[in-house]
Order: sequence, then C-alpha cells, then structure tokens
Amino acid sequence: MSANSPPIARLFSFIGGSTGPWLVDSMQCVIGEPMSTASRLSIVAGPAAPLPGESWTLRGITSNERYVVREEKVALVSKQEGLSREASTRAALIPIRKNAAWWALPQDERREVFEAQSRHIAIGLKYLPAVARRLHHCRDLGPDEPFDFLTWFEYAPSDSAAFEELVQALRASPEWAYVDREVDIRLTRAEFQLKR
Amino acid sequence: MSANSPPIARLFSFIGGSTGPWLVDSMQCVIGEPMSTASRLSIVAGPAAPLPGESWTLRGITSNERYVVREEKVALVSKQEGLSREASTRAALIPIRKNAAWWALPQDERREVFEAQSRHIAIGLKYLPAVARRLHHCRDLGPDEPFDFLTWFEYAPSDSAAFEELVQALRASPEWAYVDREVDIRLTRAEFQLKR
Repeated sequence: MSANSPPIARLFSFIGGSTGPWLVDSMQCVIGEPMSTASRLSIVAGPAAPLPGESWTLRGITSNERYVVREEKVALVSKQEGLSREASTRAALIPIRKNAAWWALPQDERREVFEAQSRHIAIGLKYLPAVARRLHHCRDLGPDEPFDFLTWFEYAPSDSAAFEELVQALRASPEWAYVDREVDIRLTRAEFQLKR
Repeated sequence: MSANSPPIARLFSFIGGSTGPWLVDSMQCVIGEPMSTASRLSIVAGPAAPLPGESWTLRGITSNERYVVREEKVALVSKQEGLSREASTRAALIPIRKNAAWWALPQDERREVFEAQSRHIAIGLKYLPAVARRLHHCRDLGPDEPFDFLTWFEYAPSDSAAFEELVQALRASPEWAYVDREVDIRLTRAEFQLKR
C-alpha cells in the first residue's frame, strides 16, 4: 500500500432490521442465545448510527491472520476472489463465540486444534473461489461484544450445496467443541429475490 | 473461572494529565510521532470519560496470547508476579505501533521474528519476577488507534537497571525493525516521590 492509497476499511457494521439490500431468508440459532429476527440486512463500513426499524447491529474488524502460515497464505491468495461478484447473489453471516477454554489455550494448541485436527484452512481452501469470505474479529473491540467473530460469505445459487458442505464440515470439526454461541443467517440480494 | 466469579477487567484507559497516582518522570519519543507531555498518570478499568487537565487517553485491552506456546506459558506463569506489589514504586508505560509489513506477515513468520530471532519471550522471562508486566492490545479496538500495543511494567527502584537492560535488549532485536512508533514513559508512584 503506497502512502497515497486511500485507507482500506477495517471496521464494518452489520445492521439487521427492515431495510437494506440483503433479504434474510433464514436465521437459525445453532448454539447458545438466539438473536432477534430481522427481515433485511445492511453492511456499512465504519461504525453505524442507529437506523429506523433496526433490530440489531453487529460490529467486526478485519485484522492480521492468527493461524495461517506462509504456504497456506500463498494458496489462499492464489485461489480466492473478492466479495461483490455479480453472480454472488447468496450470502451468509455467521457470528460465533468461543468459550473461555479456547481463549486460555496457548498459541500452539489453538493452531493444533484449528488446522491439524480440524483442517479449518484446508476446508475453506477446498471451496475457493466459489465461496468468497471476509472474517471480522469482535473480541478485542471491547469487553462486552456478543460474539468473537463474524464471518461473511458470498456465493452463487449454484454453489449453495457446496456452501452447505463447508459449513457442515466445520461444525463437525474438533474446533467447534469450543463454540458456545453461533447463529446462521442466510440471505439473498434483494434485487434477485423475484428471480429465484 | 467459575460462573460466579466477577468479570475480570480487560479494557483499561491510561490517562495522562495533571492528576493521578503516578508521577511522570520522563517521556521519551523513541521513534515516530511524539505524544504531548503530561505530569501525572491515572489508570482506570473500562472506558474513561474526559478528565479536567487531561492531556491524552490511551486505551488497550488484554487478550489471548498470540505467540506463546504451552512450554513458555508454563514457565511464565510459574515465575511471574502480579501488578500492584508494595515494592513496585517504579513503572513504565511503553506504547508501540508496528508497521504494515509486520501485519502482512503470516503467523509463522511473525512467530519466527518474535521468538526465534528476537527471543522476546525469553528476554521477558529472564527479568521475572522483578519486572511485572501487563500487555494491552489496541489495534483491533478500532481502525484509528494511535498505537498497536500498550505495555505497562512495574518494578522496584533496585530493579531499575535490570529494567533498562530488558528494554535495550528488545529494542536491539530484529522484531524492533518493524516498530514505527514508540514512546517510553517512566513513572514513580506519587506517595514515594519524596522518599527518592
């Protein structure tokens, strides 16, 4: 990044309510406390002022990698595509929280569960470039965040079955034994709703 | 931690100004932009409302370990002592920021610089329990934080030379090539000022 590049947005607000370009198809509470329902979702860069008809706002910040090693980073970067592809009319927002036992583990043991046992990076890589994703961290935004991570996924309708496989593979992994709250929100870009 | 334990504070505000229990002995800008001067420092748990006579407020949050492996964690925990020891009448607050090149490195290469090349954990361990410390993360509090880390150190006057060695050893390490802003603030607990 040159000194003249515009700053890249890191903080994002996901606003659930009755307005926004993404239609909520379903909200499933996988484990822990449910979230209140919303029919639409907006995503804005930066902090968000309360909106009329808003149900909830979740905030997350993109950050440096916590587990990925060089070889994995090269593989991910070579296969991945960005968000906002024309064909990516389906999306998922999956907020999760991990328990105190996870956060008390030293770095080597978290990496061991994350990749050696759970193949988290390898599973994500298998579904690239079909399933684009952006990971947002919440845990260090402040002491009272409701989730630790928000992951935003985008894919084409024809990749819906592949996305389902990805989510099920992660949920079946040893890493997920540490997840104590998870909500799975599925969405469709609003202008494509009538064409489904 | 049992379900009935009070929540442990994670977010701390360091308030420089003209009031507070810590007297500022010196403020040295090591690299990058200096901070405005302050004669006293207060530390409060949680976010801080602006105080009269305040010069600046820095916020940081304690978090999970990013590099420490199990064997190192066991060694650290067995040797370290807590903050607020009666004899710890000297302190240092050292805010640092690392450059974009550091944050772009994958996890394995940051660990390699941090410990294999720089012995960051081993150096800290050598000065335990004399120099107690608490690391606060700032980078993921929001997109506009002035520093990435705030480290707070406490030690007895008789360990001042040892503390100086620790700081110099870290500054001479390969890791410090990635530090692009650092301010070194030294302090004395106010009630001990007259006894020096």
